[in-house]
Amino acid sequence: MRYASRIEALSDKSLLNAFEVIETPDMISFSAGFPSPETYPLEAIRESFDHVMEESGKEALSYGSTSGYIRLREIIGNRLAEKFNLRYNLEEIIITSGSQQGLDMCGMMFINKGDVVLFENPSYLGAVNALRAHEATLAAVEIDDQGISMESLKAEVERYGDRIRMIYVNPDHQNPTGRSWSLERRKEFMTFIRDYDIPVVEDGAYAELSFGEELETPLAALDARGQVLYLGTFSKTFCPGLRVAWVCAPKTIMEKILILKNAADLSTSSIAQRQMAYYLDHYSLDNHIRGITAMYLERKDIMIQMLREHFPDSISYTNPKGGLFIWVSLPEGKDSRELLIRAQKRKVSFIPGTSFYPAADRHRELRLNFSNMDPDKIREGMKILGEITTEYLKE
Amino acid sequence: MRYASRIEALSDKSLLNAFEVIETPDMISFSAGFPSPETYPLEAIRESFDHVMEESGKEALSYGSTSGYIRLREIIGNRLAEKFNLRYNLEEIIITSGSQQGLDMCGMMFINKGDVVLFENPSYLGAVNALRAHEATLAAVEIDDQGISMESLKAEVERYGDRIRMIYVNPDHQNPTGRSWSLERRKEFMTFIRDYDIPVVEDGAYAELSFGEELETPLAALDARGQVLYLGTFSKTFCPGLRVAWVCAPKTIMEKILILKNAADLSTSSIAQRQMAYYLDHYSLDNHIRGITAMYLERKDIMIQMLREHFPDSISYTNPKGGLFIWVSLPEGKDSRELLIRAQKRKVSFIPGTSFYPAADRHRELRLNFSNMDPDKIREGMKILGEITTEYLKE
Repeated sequence: MRYASRIEALSDKSLLNAFEVIETPDMISFSAGFPSPETYPLEAIRESFDHVMEESGKEALSYGSTSGYIRLREIIGNRLAEKFNLRYNLEEIIITSGSQQGLDMCGMMFINKGDVVLFENPSYLGAVNALRAHEATLAAVEIDDQGISMESLKAEVERYGDRIRMIYVNPDHQNPTGRSWSLERRKEFMTFIRDYDIPVVEDGAYAELSFGEELETPLAALDARGQVLYLGTFSKTFCPGLRVAWVCAPKTIMEKILILKNAADLSTSSIAQRQMAYYLDHYSLDNHIRGITAMYLERKDIMIQMLREHFPDSISYTNPKGGLFIWVSLPEGKDSRELLIRAQKRKVSFIPGTSFYPAADRHRELRLNFSNMDPDKIREGMKILGEITTEYLKE
Repeated sequence: MRYASRIEALSDKSLLNAFEVIETPDMISFSAGFPSPETYPLEAIRESFDHVMEESGKEALSYGSTSGYIRLREIIGNRLAEKFNLRYNLEEIIITSGSQQGLDMCGMMFINKGDVVLFENPSYLGAVNALRAHEATLAAVEIDDQGISMESLKAEVERYGDRIRMIYVNPDHQNPTGRSWSLERRKEFMTFIRDYDIPVVEDGAYAELSFGEELETPLAALDARGQVLYLGTFSKTFCPGLRVAWVCAPKTIMEKILILKNAADLSTSSIAQRQMAYYLDHYSLDNHIRGITAMYLERKDIMIQMLREHFPDSISYTNPKGGLFIWVSLPEGKDSRELLIRAQKRKVSFIPGTSFYPAADRHRELRLNFSNMDPDKIREGMKILGEITTEYLKE
């Protein structure tokens, strides 16, 4: 059978494996990229489903509008205004089946075969895969402690010029590094990029998962040109199984996104959207987020403590101000994939950094998720991982 | 902002409008393409949600595997074997977010810009849109009372040769015409096409909505070469709001579909899949289908009667053996879009045939849905439509 040329570009199954590999229940997993299921407000969700079925079961089980359930879009719009000072009209907000679908639609929207997409290096590999599927040429922009490296960005813009058709960034508690861009860097970036006709896809998946009181300023809030597409989701703040997320941008862009959404899957599950809207109207997502971030902060601190106490001094790691991940770097010449093989034998898992480098050949980092294991498991798993690492680094 | 070239191909908003246009509640609508919401087994669905939340709430609200919930795929596999003699292994069945997503993935899988896709003329416009989004060149194959016209098919295959990369067909109670292919035509088609390296995308959305006891033989059951991708869905037999459908094909194809599914949206809602599996395990979907097809048959018969009694003899129409639609043809030179303008003024709506012709300029047909209005509304709406048509045809 002859396939489209994009199928070749998708030969990297690394992301896929992260979802398809079934970890045995006795494993201590630091691989996850999602909130801890123990935090899901099961009773409230069940009650929401009951109410939706009772009050509007027929509508909830029918096709919904392609743009999404109006009440849900209203609530999302209000939240974005309140928390991030982002002002979108209703028609500038479209519900997607997870943020992954938003990424796929951004690819559909802007990428012809061979067009260049700039990524942070490293970056979220789901985005990489979504854009690979549209045969983008991936170009890496380095990051530093303040966020995207302006120097590296300018060099890539110089290098690829007009071929660049998108920049994908994840400025808040980034997946995989846990790093957030400083406000100054955000401003610098937006000031630079407004001179270019390049859409910026801002992935705000972790924006609300902050350990502090303050939330970061989205790039979209600094967008003078109308070039930012802002992606948000309930998958990290609430739960991923409902597959409810959103994409926002100025109206001229959203009119086209709407057509793509329609071609992609007609509409996102009505019942999931209505359930979510009911929850948001009758419970406090803010309280829920306060609860989970407090829990994640505790877990992050334990993981950092274990890294400090049980790992060789030659490693380095980030200490994130939110999100779900710590990024660990092994010394030059070491390979986290080798470490994973050893760790799995002792029933510990994580994701090797390799898969987060769409355009580079780097293997010495690893991503540790701290949200999904309880403190005892974190201590136990990190102790094992520390032993293995110590041994490995001696070789 | 510069968009990908595919955005231009998607300028036709006709399908979109069918979902975005809000019909006033006092309207008699023959536009729908879905089951009647009054048939949804609300209590059973609510109970299923409750059970899923109680027994596996955490799993149901987490990311599911990309291929889909195993128990659901098992049940689907068993049903396909039992009803259609289709034999797929578990890894040959992937759950999609509606059949629309399956169509989108088929486009991703096989279509490079400019590749030719053969369609029935007319055909389902959601498929047309999904494939347009991948910049397919659409080529129309005529249909007759027995199904796809072999003569027309051979002519198109002759004409486009190796450029043809997909054939999309909807052999059972087709949307929009309501026609089913004869068994003989199915065999003839499969015998012909096995000599070509062309994937056949068979849309079985209406396959189980038969008014008789017997179901048609899917093309997939006659597939000696392993070239058929079979799409099925619960949207027409149960309800569309859950967005649960499936695609099946031989393993080598499905391995690639799995990667595309992952890039498109990671996974379909776990809770929706588990709810569906619970329903299928604890209730009888077959009984449900028997109930709704009996209801639709009654409604179809009333609509046919109204067509016979209240419309001019110069129109023609199909008399389907299942599905949701009757296809009406006005005499040469008349335009169903003009008829729609007049009908809407009198609070009746339908979908003009225009949008079902991806590669032709035909306007004298209309699609009437009979599943969504009760008998009284059908009589009332068809009487009005008959009056308007009679008047219009006199001009």
